Amino acid sequence: MNTAAAVADFRTYPLISALSGVQSLADRVSIAWADGRISPFHHVWLRDNCPCEQCVYNVTREQVFEIVDAAPDLALASAQIDSDGCLRIDWQDGHRSRFDPGWLRAHAYDDASRIERLAAKPKAYLWRSDLQLPVFDYATLMNDNGALLQWLIAVRDIGLTQVRGVPTEPGSLKLIAQRISFIRESNFGVLFNVQSKADADSNAYTAFNLPLHTDLPTRELQPGLQFLHCLVNDAEGGESIFVDGFAIADALRLEAPELFQALCDIPVEFRNKDRHSDYRCLAPIIALDALGRVAEIRMANFLRGAFDTSAEQMPLLYRAYRRLIALTREPRFRLMQRLNPGELWCFDNRRTLHARNAFDPATGARHFQGCYIDRDELLSRILVLQR
Amino acid sequence: MNTAAAVADFRTYPLISALSGVQSLADRVSIAWADGRISPFHHVWLRDNCPCEQCVYNVTREQVFEIVDAAPDLALASAQIDSDGCLRIDWQDGHRSRFDPGWLRAHAYDDASRIERLAAKPKAYLWRSDLQLPVFDYATLMNDNGALLQWLIAVRDIGLTQVRGVPTEPGSLKLIAQRISFIRESNFGVLFNVQSKADADSNAYTAFNLPLHTDLPTRELQPGLQFLHCLVNDAEGGESIFVDGFAIADALRLEAPELFQALCDIPVEFRNKDRHSDYRCLAPIIALDALGRVAEIRMANFLRGAFDTSAEQMPLLYRAYRRLIALTREPRFRLMQRLNPGELWCFDNRRTLHARNAFDPATGARHFQGCYIDRDELLSRILVLQR
Repeated sequence: MNTAAAVADFRTYPLISALSGVQSLADRVSIAWADGRISPFHHVWLRDNCPCEQCVYNVTREQVFEIVDAAPDLALASAQIDSDGCLRIDWQDGHRSRFDPGWLRAHAYDDASRIERLAAKPKAYLWRSDLQLPVFDYATLMNDNGALLQWLIAVRDIGLTQVRGVPTEPGSLKLIAQRISFIRESNFGVLFNVQSKADADSNAYTAFNLPLHTDLPTRELQPGLQFLHCLVNDAEGGESIFVDGFAIADALRLEAPELFQALCDIPVEFRNKDRHSDYRCLAPIIALDALGRVAEIRMANFLRGAFDTSAEQMPLLYRAYRRLIALTREPRFRLMQRLNPGELWCFDNRRTLHARNAFDPATGARHFQGCYIDRDELLSRILVLQR
Repeated sequence: MNTAAAVADFRTYPLISALSGVQSLADRVSIAWADGRISPFHHVWLRDNCPCEQCVYNVTREQVFEIVDAAPDLALASAQIDSDGCLRIDWQDGHRSRFDPGWLRAHAYDDASRIERLAAKPKAYLWRSDLQLPVFDYATLMNDNGALLQWLIAVRDIGLTQVRGVPTEPGSLKLIAQRISFIRESNFGVLFNVQSKADADSNAYTAFNLPLHTDLPTRELQPGLQFLHCLVNDAEGGESIFVDGFAIADALRLEAPELFQALCDIPVEFRNKDRHSDYRCLAPIIALDALGRVAEIRMANFLRGAFDTSAEQMPLLYRAYRRLIALTREPRFRLMQRLNPGELWCFDNRRTLHARNAFDPATGARHFQGCYIDRDELLSRILVLQR
């Protein structure tokens, strides 16, 4: 029934329901499915999505046809269900398009189909201090793609994971990060060393406590995933603390919607400077997606510039900011754990805020290595593993 | 007069106008400047921005104080202009803050100061087919930071530049790109080779014409700068074509505001798949900044997914998309030039659309190398060179 030739895609589209009828209207066809759903498909949409070898290059599966080259008065000669169950359109200019019913159903844009697709998207699982931490084993992740997929889904949906049994040789982090993709470089390097340094170019490289923050809020795109790998941890203090930034934002929205809105609306500058760089980024602390859901938190008090908003808004912005910081300090949200050598954290840097208690370098060495991978790479890897 | 100790910043802040008076109000002080400007500074803002060594770590110049730790009823004991011309605040809890008048003026948030800062920001220079192409010399850029700065400002404000005299050994591109920063890696590599390949994983790696597009619209953050370096160009055809996407968007906004708005509002999916990756990004074709100015174009017909919007909006989206593509084809916007060996294009990939005419691999070899650098790195480098 399914005709692979008609589908320009690496994905496969199961037949959810057969085509049962097709009705021609002025600017569209109306498809009836065997399960009763009705889907409109505009002529221009169908012509644009023609999967034939003239319209799509079959090696790259990328379109070579451009819809602007269709006649403005594009019209069809006939629309019918062919003997393979595909929708066949004959255009008045002689071109013919055939659509696999599985593909067509997966791309239908009637309201019911669109709501169904939205509902099927992954959702963030919000957590608090009592999170059952998802823990994975290094050797298994290195060898087993099924385990790798489970790990990556936990990173995507929960935003905080731990991996144990990682070798403690410097650079080992690279091997497991590369199970996902290449690493995102920054001015701090491909791998960065988190150690107390005399000439620190960030408070991260001191022994101070670091309040809850995201890394590189100074960049237009904050890194998606952050890895922190413990090689040595003999110093007193330095426990890791995590808070689900989406849960905090959710709590703020319920408690004080006007403060939540201020953090969505008023951009704040983050900056980080040293002798060789001067990064600045102006963006709101809470970013929403097109549906109004919290999509990202951007926050690092020690990298924040002076607030620059109107005098009328300034008190509101401070009330909102202070309340947000106060929430991050509430025990109900905070998960605290000391990382041991051979363990690593992998978390969603655009969601999960991380902090470190102060440590005492006089009591012993402490050496972590870190790196970043972008969310694009995580999501691509998940899709490939799910094929 | 200026007291370096009071300024936690690598920048210097010239004294634009001296402080001439300070008036205490309930929740703020009102500063009068010698040139007549009046600026309010809320107590909470002043306490938050205290530059003393207790509040800011002087090695990293990052804040260690957090404003949530100030008393909710934060009050000042006195505000005065000291003998160095600085604003001195004594807080009721005994803390003292001193503010350099140059720094204070640079961060004042009265309406006039905010409008002044906004007006001083770099602006895009829109261009058409008659652009006087900014051309730079490789050897000069490699050795002269002043020339480098001029080049980078042209990339930032015009969005299209050419460099000549580049060595034609493969990999040479890396040297000049690294005059700016590290390179942004992608699944196509650190440097990518643009050659016709039998097993192409993108239409870019065929001999087809490529319509006007941005690279990697499939990623949440499209690469900021794109470099294309010509090593060999013996094949017939393959001319480079550029269009200022901001100029096209501007023309569309004037001509048909409802079509412009549709491209700002309705997100479109871009995707690129091969055996090892599956990238998808859902975003509008035109992105505006907080002030409603066009900030980014995202467009590549061959990487676009099926439009997925309501049946009511679908005809509008197609009208807008077809008109946008038609505009990119109008000669008044198109700059066409053949790139010769030893020349490279460096352009703003989020603004300047690029295209390539089809070429004929049977007539000779054609080999370009390319790479990406993000806008964050460009802007940081400019700021450091301007210090």
